[in-house]
Amino acid sequence: MIVLLPTQKNMTKPSIPKGTRDFLPTETARRNYIFDTIRNVYRKYGYMPIETPAMENLSTLLGKYGDEGDKLLFKILNSGDAFAGISADDLAHSNAIAMKTCEKGLRYDLTVPFARFVVQHQNELTFPFKRYQIQQVWRADRPQKGRYREFYQCDADVIGSASLLNEVELVQIIDDVFSQLGIPVTIKINNRKALGGIAEIIGEADKLTDITVAIDKMDKIGQADVEAELAAKGVTAQAIGRLRPILQLSGSNRDKLAALQQMLAPSATGLAGVAELQMIMDYLQALSIAQTVEIDLSLARGLNYYTGTIFEVKAREVAIGSICGGGRYDDLTGIFGLKNMSGVGISFGADRIYDVLLQLNLFPSATSESARVLFFNLGEAGEQQALQYVQQLRRQGVITEMYPDSHKLKKQFEYADRRGIPFAAIIGEEEVKNGVITLKNLISGEQQNVSFERLVDTISGTK
Amino acid sequence: MIVLLPTQKNMTKPSIPKGTRDFLPTETARRNYIFDTIRNVYRKYGYMPIETPAMENLSTLLGKYGDEGDKLLFKILNSGDAFAGISADDLAHSNAIAMKTCEKGLRYDLTVPFARFVVQHQNELTFPFKRYQIQQVWRADRPQKGRYREFYQCDADVIGSASLLNEVELVQIIDDVFSQLGIPVTIKINNRKALGGIAEIIGEADKLTDITVAIDKMDKIGQADVEAELAAKGVTAQAIGRLRPILQLSGSNRDKLAALQQMLAPSATGLAGVAELQMIMDYLQALSIAQTVEIDLSLARGLNYYTGTIFEVKAREVAIGSICGGGRYDDLTGIFGLKNMSGVGISFGADRIYDVLLQLNLFPSATSESARVLFFNLGEAGEQQALQYVQQLRRQGVITEMYPDSHKLKKQFEYADRRGIPFAAIIGEEEVKNGVITLKNLISGEQQNVSFERLVDTISGTK
Repeated sequence: MIVLLPTQKNMTKPSIPKGTRDFLPTETARRNYIFDTIRNVYRKYGYMPIETPAMENLSTLLGKYGDEGDKLLFKILNSGDAFAGISADDLAHSNAIAMKTCEKGLRYDLTVPFARFVVQHQNELTFPFKRYQIQQVWRADRPQKGRYREFYQCDADVIGSASLLNEVELVQIIDDVFSQLGIPVTIKINNRKALGGIAEIIGEADKLTDITVAIDKMDKIGQADVEAELAAKGVTAQAIGRLRPILQLSGSNRDKLAALQQMLAPSATGLAGVAELQMIMDYLQALSIAQTVEIDLSLARGLNYYTGTIFEVKAREVAIGSICGGGRYDDLTGIFGLKNMSGVGISFGADRIYDVLLQLNLFPSATSESARVLFFNLGEAGEQQALQYVQQLRRQGVITEMYPDSHKLKKQFEYADRRGIPFAAIIGEEEVKNGVITLKNLISGEQQNVSFERLVDTISGTK
Repeated sequence: MIVLLPTQKNMTKPSIPKGTRDFLPTETARRNYIFDTIRNVYRKYGYMPIETPAMENLSTLLGKYGDEGDKLLFKILNSGDAFAGISADDLAHSNAIAMKTCEKGLRYDLTVPFARFVVQHQNELTFPFKRYQIQQVWRADRPQKGRYREFYQCDADVIGSASLLNEVELVQIIDDVFSQLGIPVTIKINNRKALGGIAEIIGEADKLTDITVAIDKMDKIGQADVEAELAAKGVTAQAIGRLRPILQLSGSNRDKLAALQQMLAPSATGLAGVAELQMIMDYLQALSIAQTVEIDLSLARGLNYYTGTIFEVKAREVAIGSICGGGRYDDLTGIFGLKNMSGVGISFGADRIYDVLLQLNLFPSATSESARVLFFNLGEAGEQQALQYVQQLRRQGVITEMYPDSHKLKKQFEYADRRGIPFAAIIGEEEVKNGVITLKNLISGEQQNVSFERLVDTISGTK
């Protein structure tokens, strides 16, 4: 019997902080299906798991995500008397108080903690170091549809190897994950060196960052607005005119590479980028997975630390933005004092993948969390016998439940129904006397008296 | 080539907050082995997964763990200008500023968030609700050996059923988990009603909480100090004298129950507790798992919310405190306004279980994270062929790596060795010409030329 008392003083309906979420069983089981799929692919490719703490020193996090990023860090109040050393004067400087009273913050992504980890543990690691990490991150962003203050990232990175085979392997991983999930995707690929070459040949080499930031928005705001933003940043009309045909290059990957090679002939950097793209495409061709890969010169990715290949994945049948992304960075650990460690990595966006699977109706109907059979509780009569059978089924690895209370059968049927359990096993006085089990298929309604052996076969679908 | 630059200004060696931990690959893989074992058992018994946010509203957490607990909550600074409304006068009241500038805190355990979750989502849940939850919790405790500020809890609870079958099932789960891990344990069991009866018959019914808090320390501080603490709390010498033989009751579970039943005859509450213990033991006997279960009347567990059965698990061969614990609480959701929801739950201590497995050398030598074979990279000669084989092996589910750079063989052997990979596959010009693979067993040193089919059989151990 559930009774919700009238709201008392101090007893408002419980809630959670805005931008955070509770996950109910069905949702959690589905999310675990996504995480397990990604994790198993990462494992199969030899990536090793690590975990880092939710809290990092603020000195590790600050200045790594730009001024905007700094503002989005959740800061944790020092324990003990955090305000002991604060004077009235300090109150004029809000940011200074925050720095004096908070030494720790919640991680903003998994990449900076990974760089910190590699530098801190460099003597304990084997390079090239291939790691995967599936953990939560927190951002004090304004919550809105599809944007949360707490969410999972699912990252894999290789650090300490400049070989393009790593890029090839990451494309294989992306292809493998989305094949297993059943989501048709396009894997878009570009190269920062090629973008650098483009900035050079249009005469705006010093504005590479402005150019990448602007064209990264192509998908969201369109060509016209990108050009307006470029103009506002001081890119000349002539340069924009030269840029346009490059970003609009169409045709096959082979056509695009051929055109680029000609256009970027004056830029050594640009040609190096084209050669990398060419090599990766050759490998992928040989492995027969090039058909889902598309060279897209308007792909830029905002983050400043990428220096070579960049990736982004789109679901073909759902308009939802990128569901996976990544790239190569030549100097990620440099910020923590370790130079010359080239790395490349990807990150799957579990929340968006969830939405895509839901929209395309691709979640498996039974996840690995669903019970196959509920043994009813009819009180003492068959209870002992039922408990024995339940124990045996679980020993055989079958997810099995026994209803704990001898409630009315109607209530127990409702429970099975709401839980989505396909079979009910009933053992009352009559069944005990005859040494049988009444087994009811809750989907078809079919009911029969069976032996335990027959029950095992029936519920595991072998009949 | 790794170069650690001399420390620059602003570039101290990176570190993490005290009391937190990084987990390296081997450690993470072993921890995942523990979590996976517990998770799979929970699933097999029909428990469903949920997740709650790391951050809860402080109003949800405060006052639920006693004054000491309140001090151990990590508070999160409000985003935006947290100090905008703070005056110089406020500075005199440190706690008041914290309350004005922090609305959120990190969860302290999984039980209070679970209670909040059940009340908030009561209309979306099916009762009895069986949930498991494996997530981190944070406590601003003084860090010391074996005590961390961030750690995982692995909880399972049933809420909305008063049946003792739930207690029986939780003992089965405990037995199942530790059998699978190979850890010999004693599952200690007691009952708060029995303890209440004991307090009654020694004439100190109003001091039940003081008595449970004191005898809960029996293991740590011994009988004499427990008695000193009881005396300090005002328990009379006569009462302590009467308590002593009860706490020291020895013999079989049957003997203890018989003795208790006599002693507690004047207390209805006490007899109810004994009857519950008796019933649980009868069920466990019938299921043949009673032999690891021991009634221990000195078992009290400090937490105030337990009202019936209490559990605690000790490793028999390692002195390390309890590695699992739990109990029944009749009114956990009452704090959030939902009455009459009896619940019972357990929680596994992953950190201590890790230490026990390590000490008893019980971790499996190969976890599910270890690669079986490393394909060497000899440059272009055999690279394409190697990539094809690697792709085929992974498609068959074999964890396979390809070394990404054409480094010297010595370096590639070192990599395989440090990663603990048992086989090396080498394809150079010679092998390509002869259509074979050189396969080296890195443990025995044995080396042979094999076909791909033979390689598959050999590395999967079927020969």
